[in-house]
Amino acid sequence: MSDIITVIAPVNIAVIKYWGKRDEDLILPLNDSVSATLDTSIMCAKTSVCARADFKENAIWLNGKKESFDSPRLQNCLREIKLRAAAEKSVSEDFLQRKVHVCSENNFPTAAGLASSAAGYACLVTALAKLYKVKSDVSSIARLGSGSACRSVYGGFVRWHAGINPNGTDSVATQIVDSTHWPEMHALILVVGDTKKKTSSTVGMRIATQTSELLKHRVKYCVPERTEAIIQAIKQKDFPKFAEITMKDSNQFHAVALDSYPPCVYMTDVSHFIVDLIHKYNTASGSVKVAYTFDAGPNACLYLLNDEVPKVISLIKHVFPSSKPESFITGLNSEEEVLSPALMSICEPQVQDLIKYVIHTKVGEGPTEITDGSHLLNEAGLPKTE
Amino acid sequence: MSDIITVIAPVNIAVIKYWGKRDEDLILPLNDSVSATLDTSIMCAKTSVCARADFKENAIWLNGKKESFDSPRLQNCLREIKLRAAAEKSVSEDFLQRKVHVCSENNFPTAAGLASSAAGYACLVTALAKLYKVKSDVSSIARLGSGSACRSVYGGFVRWHAGINPNGTDSVATQIVDSTHWPEMHALILVVGDTKKKTSSTVGMRIATQTSELLKHRVKYCVPERTEAIIQAIKQKDFPKFAEITMKDSNQFHAVALDSYPPCVYMTDVSHFIVDLIHKYNTASGSVKVAYTFDAGPNACLYLLNDEVPKVISLIKHVFPSSKPESFITGLNSEEEVLSPALMSICEPQVQDLIKYVIHTKVGEGPTEITDGSHLLNEAGLPKTE
Repeated sequence: MSDIITVIAPVNIAVIKYWGKRDEDLILPLNDSVSATLDTSIMCAKTSVCARADFKENAIWLNGKKESFDSPRLQNCLREIKLRAAAEKSVSEDFLQRKVHVCSENNFPTAAGLASSAAGYACLVTALAKLYKVKSDVSSIARLGSGSACRSVYGGFVRWHAGINPNGTDSVATQIVDSTHWPEMHALILVVGDTKKKTSSTVGMRIATQTSELLKHRVKYCVPERTEAIIQAIKQKDFPKFAEITMKDSNQFHAVALDSYPPCVYMTDVSHFIVDLIHKYNTASGSVKVAYTFDAGPNACLYLLNDEVPKVISLIKHVFPSSKPESFITGLNSEEEVLSPALMSICEPQVQDLIKYVIHTKVGEGPTEITDGSHLLNEAGLPKTE
Repeated sequence: MSDIITVIAPVNIAVIKYWGKRDEDLILPLNDSVSATLDTSIMCAKTSVCARADFKENAIWLNGKKESFDSPRLQNCLREIKLRAAAEKSVSEDFLQRKVHVCSENNFPTAAGLASSAAGYACLVTALAKLYKVKSDVSSIARLGSGSACRSVYGGFVRWHAGINPNGTDSVATQIVDSTHWPEMHALILVVGDTKKKTSSTVGMRIATQTSELLKHRVKYCVPERTEAIIQAIKQKDFPKFAEITMKDSNQFHAVALDSYPPCVYMTDVSHFIVDLIHKYNTASGSVKVAYTFDAGPNACLYLLNDEVPKVISLIKHVFPSSKPESFITGLNSEEEVLSPALMSICEPQVQDLIKYVIHTKVGEGPTEITDGSHLLNEAGLPKTE
C-alpha cells in the first residue's frame, strides 16, 4: 500500500454570498453563507500528499509548477492539521516531524476564476487530514486557506456559520442536505470573456468592510433572514423561492461592492445582459425557472432543474453564437430542444463569443479519496509531470 | 409689448441623488437631494407661452413637434399655476379662462439623456408663472412635472426637501448658495455611447421602492447625514469633502438600483472605466481633485475646480481618442495642458469613440426671462419653425 494520499475536492458556488471579514487573519466572515457543492466529475481540484523521513523540506507543486511553501495560509493549514493530529494522538510524534510533499492541480481552467482556491484548499486540507488520520471536522482549517474552502468540505448544500467566537472555533461549515436530496439541481457556468482588471476578493472585502454603509445593513438584517429562508426552500425543494433569493442575494452582494469606496465592480455589460436574459426567460416561462448568481468576477452561474436544461442550453446557443460551437458546451451531456418562436423572440442573437464556453454540471459530493493509484506524486514523492 | 413670455431654464445634476418616491402621483421623494444648477449659456431649455382669447385649444410643441396636451404631468402643472394665480388674484378671471400655447426646445441633444425633463418642466412652470404673474415659489409645481425639475428653479446649489406633508406642500427646493458663491466650480459631462435599453427612472424608482432593502437604510441613515455634510462642504467651499460625498452618493444610488428586483443597471463598462480613471487621477494628484457622478444613464458628470480643467481635458483626450477631435469638446472654452509622464501613465489610450463628446460647463443661474424678443412662438402664437 502506497504512503501517498490523493484526494479530489469540489468547487462550490454560493447562493447566499460571503462578503466581508470580521477577522482578516483568521478569515472569519461577517455573515453566514450558503452554497451548492458541484460535481467533482466535471470540475475538481486533485491533491496528492506524502510525508517521509527522507524528505529534506516541505515542498508544493501547483498546476505543474513548484511554488513557495512560505505562504502563511498554507503554513496555517498544515500547522492546524498537525495540532489536531497531536491532540487526537492519531499518528506518531515521529510522523508529525516529517516533511511533506504536496502536489495539486485543477481539472478546469483557473482562468475561469471559478472558486479554484476553494476547491484547492478543501482538497489540501482533506488530503492532509487523511495523511495525519485526523477524524474531526476540518472545515475550520480549510477556512484558514481560503474562506469559502470550508464549504467545499461537504457535498450537497452547505452552510458556513459566521460564528461569534473571536478565535473562530465556531466558524465552521455544516451540511444542509446531501447531494441525493435534490438531484434535479443542475448548474450552467457561463464563462464570460473578460479583459477587466478586477479587485481581488481579499482587497474588495476589506474596502467594503471599511467603507460600505449598506454592507452593515446587509449583514445585520438581510442575510440572516435570507439564510433561514433559503435553507427552508432547499429542504422543501421549492425552486422558485430558492431562485428568487439566490438572484436577490447576488445582486445585493454586487450592490455592496459598488457601495464601497472606491467602488469594486465585478460584473460587466455581458454579465448584466445575462441577468436581463434570465429575467426575460422567467417572465416568458410564467414562473421562475432559472436563477443567476455571480461571484467576484463576470462569469454567471445559472442554477436550474434538469428538465429546464435543454431549453436553456438552446437559448444560450441562440443568443450567444460561438466561433467554436463544437467545444462551446462542456461537462455533462446536454440535450437540446427546439425553441418556440415566443422564446426565440425574447432576445436577438448577439455578436460572436461574448461567452467563451459553458460548463454544464450539477450538485455533487464532497471531497473523496482516490484509491486507484492515480496519484500526482511518483514513487520518489515527486510530481509525475516533472 | 408682446403677450408672449419666453424663459430659458437650466439643467441640474444632483450630487445627493433622488431615488424612490413616497407618493407617485404627487412625485414626493423618499429623501432630500442636492444638486448644482448648470450654466444656461451652455445647456438650457427654452420655452415660450402665450394665452389668447382666440386660441381654440391648449397646444404644445416640443423640439419642433406638436405633442398631446393630455399628459397628466403637463395638466397638473398648468392647473396648479392657475390655482395659484387665482389665489393670488394676479390676473383676471377672463385671462385664466384662455387657452395657452406652449413651445419648448432644448439647445442640447436630448439623446444625451441629461436632465432634459428637469430643465423643460422648470422652464415651463417658470414661464407659466410669469404669464399668470404668480409671485410665490413654484418649485413644488415644477416637481409635479418632473421631480428633479424643482431643483432647476434656482441657480447655484439647491436642496430639494423631501418634506413630510402627505399633500407635498413642503416638498420644495431651496437655494443653498447662489451661483456667485463658488464660481470656480466647473463640470465636464462625458457623453458615453450607449446602446443599452435602460429602465425609465419612474419604473426604476418604483421597483427600488418596492423591493430594495438597502434603499430603506440609505433613505433613513445615509442620505440625511450626507445632505448635512455636503451642504457644509458647499458653504465652506471644501472641494475634497464635496467630491468624496458626491462620488459615494453616486455609487450608492447605483448600488440600490442594482439591489432592486429585477435589478436596474444604468452604468456601463465605459462608465465604470471612467470611475476607475478618476480614482487613479485623484491618487496621482495626491488629493481629491475631481468627482464623478452618474444619473440614471451611462454618462458621467465630473465636478472639478477651474484650475484643474486643462489637465483633466488633456487626460480625457489622451485616454478617449475621438474620430471627430474638432467637435469632441463643446461648451466653455477649454485650455489644455501638456500631461506629465506620471499622469500619462495612469491609463493607456482606449479604442476610439468610447466617449462621444464632452460638454464643458459650470455652475450657473436659475431660469431667466428672455426680453430680446427671440420667442419660439410667432405673432400668430404658432411655432416659428412651422
